[in-house]
Amino acid sequence: MAPDDPIASLIALLSRLPGIGERTAARLAFYVLEGEPQYADALGKALSTIHEEVTRCEICGNYGAESHCGICQDPRRDETVVCIVAKVPDLIALESLGSFRGRYHVLHGLLAPLDGIGPDQLPLDALERRIADQGLKEVIIATPLNVEGEATALFIADTLSAMSVKVSRIAAGVPHGGELEFTDQVTLGRALEDRRSVR
Amino acid sequence: MAPDDPIASLIALLSRLPGIGERTAARLAFYVLEGEPQYADALGKALSTIHEEVTRCEICGNYGAESHCGICQDPRRDETVVCIVAKVPDLIALESLGSFRGRYHVLHGLLAPLDGIGPDQLPLDALERRIADQGLKEVIIATPLNVEGEATALFIADTLSAMSVKVSRIAAGVPHGGELEFTDQVTLGRALEDRRSVR
Repeated sequence: MAPDDPIASLIALLSRLPGIGERTAARLAFYVLEGEPQYADALGKALSTIHEEVTRCEICGNYGAESHCGICQDPRRDETVVCIVAKVPDLIALESLGSFRGRYHVLHGLLAPLDGIGPDQLPLDALERRIADQGLKEVIIATPLNVEGEATALFIADTLSAMSVKVSRIAAGVPHGGELEFTDQVTLGRALEDRRSVR
Repeated sequence: MAPDDPIASLIALLSRLPGIGERTAARLAFYVLEGEPQYADALGKALSTIHEEVTRCEICGNYGAESHCGICQDPRRDETVVCIVAKVPDLIALESLGSFRGRYHVLHGLLAPLDGIGPDQLPLDALERRIADQGLKEVIIATPLNVEGEATALFIADTLSAMSVKVSRIAAGVPHGGELEFTDQVTLGRALEDRRSVR
């Protein structure tokens, strides 16, 4: 096939997706080509228009079709509790629990000095404004439990220390079903340190 | 997110791809959404237009941008030897060898009576016409070595038995690097039966 071949171009574009190698990209391209044109068209249009159709919520940074996301528009959600997450998939994971009734603040990133991402790149001014304007009672920091997530959590806790708002961090510990024998030392150390009284 | 959410729609469409579950589809959707709009647009357009831009070669059934594919248009390819393959990815695999200088005939399927695919659904009339018109010397049947591929190979060999053309089948045997100890009995049996003289 010639290098300007439409199949080759499609395979090249598909293989830029994360976790999709060239062989998988070829399989996907031929699946689309041998399938119904309606499907190819629907998938293509959904991809082409996703950036136009999806905007970030002006309040919390969650994705949505309007300027304010569904969660920020929902009057039943407690607007005095805000959970800080690094990215929207983390918000979706928390929402799938169905138990958190507060709102969110999506950072769309974490502090990463080596990648040039400092505090100015994170929407922390907006967070401080929410605390002041909405009378927030609690900020739950739910950034990931890795180096960047911990550093970001520490930085946010420091930044908010002067404000009259409770700041909490999701618990670190042995995951459900975890065998102590096979748990890494950092996790085990924190689980021991953060032990809680059972009576 | 609402059910008519554009992200949810995109995830649903992506998860129809083979081997892409819902979690992977979500990862791909967010990758596209957080990446450059130009990439989303290019991938979307490539998918939407693939059915218009790609046609089947009128001679051999290979995919191409014109009515005759690059291989059928290439005067340096031997038009007296035709290799029969089940699908275009098989043709691409053979082409990647760089050693076959003949042409192809793509069946776009295999005999599968249980799925209602009989001889009439395969382009065998076109093959017989090619044999008569182009003066083919050899037809190499390179359908897969599974039940449907073998049945199709047998049927084609039968169909062509009255014509003055050599009909061959790709070799069955132990694959390169294969340990006899771990080779299945059918493969081993055929490797023994189809043994070839070494001097």
